[in-house]
Amino acid sequence: MTRKPALLIIDMQNDFASTHAVLPVAGAQAVITPLTQLLSLFREKQLPIFHIVRVHEPDGSDVEWFRAEMFKDKPFAVRGSHGAAVINELTPLPGEHLIEKVRMSAFIGTTLDLMLRTLGVNVVVVGGIQTPNCIRTTIFDAMAYNYVTILVDDATGAQTKEIHEANVLDMKNIGVKILNTADVAPWLDSL
Amino acid sequence: MTRKPALLIIDMQNDFASTHAVLPVAGAQAVITPLTQLLSLFREKQLPIFHIVRVHEPDGSDVEWFRAEMFKDKPFAVRGSHGAAVINELTPLPGEHLIEKVRMSAFIGTTLDLMLRTLGVNVVVVGGIQTPNCIRTTIFDAMAYNYVTILVDDATGAQTKEIHEANVLDMKNIGVKILNTADVAPWLDSL
Repeated sequence: MTRKPALLIIDMQNDFASTHAVLPVAGAQAVITPLTQLLSLFREKQLPIFHIVRVHEPDGSDVEWFRAEMFKDKPFAVRGSHGAAVINELTPLPGEHLIEKVRMSAFIGTTLDLMLRTLGVNVVVVGGIQTPNCIRTTIFDAMAYNYVTILVDDATGAQTKEIHEANVLDMKNIGVKILNTADVAPWLDSL
Repeated sequence: MTRKPALLIIDMQNDFASTHAVLPVAGAQAVITPLTQLLSLFREKQLPIFHIVRVHEPDGSDVEWFRAEMFKDKPFAVRGSHGAAVINELTPLPGEHLIEKVRMSAFIGTTLDLMLRTLGVNVVVVGGIQTPNCIRTTIFDAMAYNYVTILVDDATGAQTKEIHEANVLDMKNIGVKILNTADVAPWLDSL
């Protein structure tokens, strides 16, 4: 079967990934450079790019119940706010896809699976934040939906190195391919 | 809101959890006794019980692609086989619910969410195997669907203690309540 990859960049928004984030993820800053390199690579190869972002209504009516109190105290990723926007370094270009979500997995309540199928994509290359939550739920769902799934290790961040590594092990154990950014170009060329 | 709990026991089938399992999970044997205690408790309180099992067609046409080769070599949880049956110690009683699944999460491609809603259940108490895969994907989906979600720590098993504990930490971090079997009865009484 012909392999057609797409890049999925998850939750790299000001409220989570900038230096003044309202809900900062400790590992976010370190993944910006690898993600810019992946973006350049996929743009150069004219392969599909999906910017996947969490966006909530200002009243919080679409927030998970287990985060409702947190949102009330400290609203995050509010539609139309600077905090909800993708960080400057990774700004989407025209022709790239923007998927908004209200849950951790990019497959829950979104058009992601339909869009990937429509584009004939059968390989997803995933980076962003944070490893145990939005990254991992998206990756396990991608595996359930039979995508060949690549986690870009150094382009994915968590609150601690230990949490990141424990999650990478679990993903590796179910058959997710683990690559570093530098290995993605040769791997794409080998498809 | 009135709290109505249900017990979800996941993948405690001969092929994964018996002493002669074809795909054994190292931590499975240790969780049998805690699960029998949880079963007794929920039966005594007449609360809903869901036995959730993986069942595949003999030709493997419903197996995840990333497990297709494994299934060909060593078919597991085949419909109608002894291996697909719930282990003797946890045999479902009439009136208890049996949910068959073909993916890790008990919410993917099943009636679980509809059944829970129909019964008015808003709290799920989860045990079984194995922590990083079917347990965790089910628990993250339960949280996404706004169920109050309890992981019964000593009634849940993985291949190693380290994998189990790393996953329990991630679940705790998103707000899953972690209890041991002995604490479930008093916790139910406090609802």
